[in-house]
Amino acid sequence: MKIRILVTGGTFDKEYDELSGALFFKDTHVQEMLRLGRARLDLAVETVMMIDSLEMDDERRAAIVARCRDAAERGIVGTHGTDTMVDTARVLAAAELQDKTIVLTGAMVPYAFGSSDGLFNLGSALSFVQVLPPGVYVAMNGRHFPWDRVRKNRETGVFELLER
Amino acid sequence: MKIRILVTGGTFDKEYDELSGALFFKDTHVQEMLRLGRARLDLAVETVMMIDSLEMDDERRAAIVARCRDAAERGIVGTHGTDTMVDTARVLAAAELQDKTIVLTGAMVPYAFGSSDGLFNLGSALSFVQVLPPGVYVAMNGRHFPWDRVRKNRETGVFELLER
Amino acid sequence: MKIRILVTGGTFDKEYDELSGALFFKDTHVQEMLRLGRARLDLAVETVMMIDSLEMDDERRAAIVARCRDAAERGIVGTHGTDTMVDTARVLAAAELQDKTIVLTGAMVPYAFGSSDGLFNLGSALSFVQVLPPGVYVAMNGRHFPWDRVRKNRETGVFELLER
Amino acid sequence: MKIRILVTGGTFDKEYDELSGALFFKDTHVQEMLRLGRARLDLAVETVMMIDSLEMDDERRAAIVARCRDAAERGIVGTHGTDTMVDTARVLAAAELQDKTIVLTGAMVPYAFGSSDGLFNLGSALSFVQVLPPGVYVAMNGRHFPWDRVRKNRETGVFELLER
Repeated sequence: MKIRILVTGGTFDKEYDELSGALFFKDTHVQEMLRLGRARLDLAVETVMMIDSLEMDDERRAAIVARCRDAAERGIVGTHGTDTMVDTARVLAAAELQDKTIVLTGAMVPYAFGSSDGLFNLGSALSFVQVLPPGVYVAMNGRHFPWDRVRKNRETGVFELLER
Repeated sequence: MKIRILVTGGTFDKEYDELSGALFFKDTHVQEMLRLGRARLDLAVETVMMIDSLEMDDERRAAIVARCRDAAERGIVGTHGTDTMVDTARVLAAAELQDKTIVLTGAMVPYAFGSSDGLFNLGSALSFVQVLPPGVYVAMNGRHFPWDRVRKNRETGVFELLER
Repeated sequence: MKIRILVTGGTFDKEYDELSGALFFKDTHVQEMLRLGRARLDLAVETVMMIDSLEMDDERRAAIVARCRDAAERGIVGTHGTDTMVDTARVLAAAELQDKTIVLTGAMVPYAFGSSDGLFNLGSALSFVQVLPPGVYVAMNGRHFPWDRVRKNRETGVFELLER
Repeated sequence: MKIRILVTGGTFDKEYDELSGALFFKDTHVQEMLRLGRARLDLAVETVMMIDSLEMDDERRAAIVARCRDAAERGIVGTHGTDTMVDTARVLAAAELQDKTIVLTGAMVPYAFGSSDGLFNLGSALSFVQVLPPGVYVAMNGRHFPWDRVRKNRETGVFELLER
């Protein structure tokens, strides 16, 4: 199965600017993470944007939808900031990309920090995308959630299943 | 879904003994890795043994089979050295534990090293075990393989799908 | 020789708050760094404050001077943000603590990041303090500078020797 | 002050061979460590050999002495396995390189492991070499020892000062 990784930034890819002392985005770490994970998948990695998910807006979400629609791959993993990941999942679901399995994932701590959950989440999302039926999902905390049954608990930082 | 992690050692859990300069086993790093991955799964972690997989033998495999059979959980992830992982998968398959999904995983580089694939593989195995149908699998390199269609290429360190 | 480490915060000790996505201060990492470095020195570690060095002001500098004056140890290492480290060194020199060797050090990247210079700088500062004559120094980039012959180059992040 | 770093291997530079599962030597990590430490010293780095210090013998020590004698630099830092570091220091002292300050250092845990003391020790050794008078020293555990007043305690892994 061919998989496309669409990079959008988020905590995943934040770095520390040692001159300003601020966090910023440069290049994605996804390629390095795939090397570390010794991933042997048929993968294409594409950087769509590099933003904090608080800056995510309708126009940018439309760009992500367009990239998912145009992608030749049936499996798509999107890296995304956690704060608005569920909102983007909803927009992707509304786009009705019938035959695609789309899994959004992210990180609570930047990969560039030693203590990041990014590598765990990337391994998790790449696995779920290979076996879940078409649809839009969020993969965090080792779990997968259908797009319409998940929320991020802002107080704990944990993604929770919504009861129907 | 409840999941049991059965720890058997392997490269995953090797540490560096700073007095002797040799690699050795102490405690498993699985709990620490789950914390890092912020895993929010219904998990039980059990150390069955702590050995290099070159020491794996019939008796030890029987112990692993017994632990899988006795486990209340339907999903089981086993950490295992990569050299003989496929052999243990075969023994588990022969045990015909009908309703269980068993996923073996490991690492090419110890978790205690900065450059380990362990966290990626653990995230991957824990994801596959939740969605794959009952059976015995190997999860490495971001992929999953049925127990009878995989081999480790000793020259490249990569797990490969066997054509039927 | 007894040495006192006075912790004041700075980039050294910044951490990533995974709920807010901002950098903040919690506890110092100095004790953990000393363990990692297997330091076997006669050391006392004291947290004087936990601030970004941009918040350093006269009152806080007076507190640091007071702690240096009151300390029983002849050797003092102060951790400090790099932006105003030279200013604090000047205030310490003006205090004329005749018989003490005081070495300020810091980091360009937080210790909690994998890529920090903190451990290198701490090893360096603790070494210089044992062998330099009484006076006030800055130890960065593997070098030591008398307090009145150093400036931080804001564009490169490098500490430079001023020609007299 | 110009400094030459003579690399001889030792735990410092051990790596994990993911195919054989054994520790081995490839290239030195010293250049990477200097980058991490943002060292701004006038440095030459030279790999003299890449061996476990248990393999150190008279011939190899003669090669190290020759490199120290021939070096244009007055300050020399040698990386060395800890088990026989003191023996090499004795041979260097016997060579009577009058005007040189030679500091041997090493690590208890390989730099390639996350938990290494290597960066701390390198920062320490590079600092001591700039300020100590000519002679041969060992720098470990944040301390410096004259070559004839130090032993490695094999049970604790700690370098200790010998009373005269």
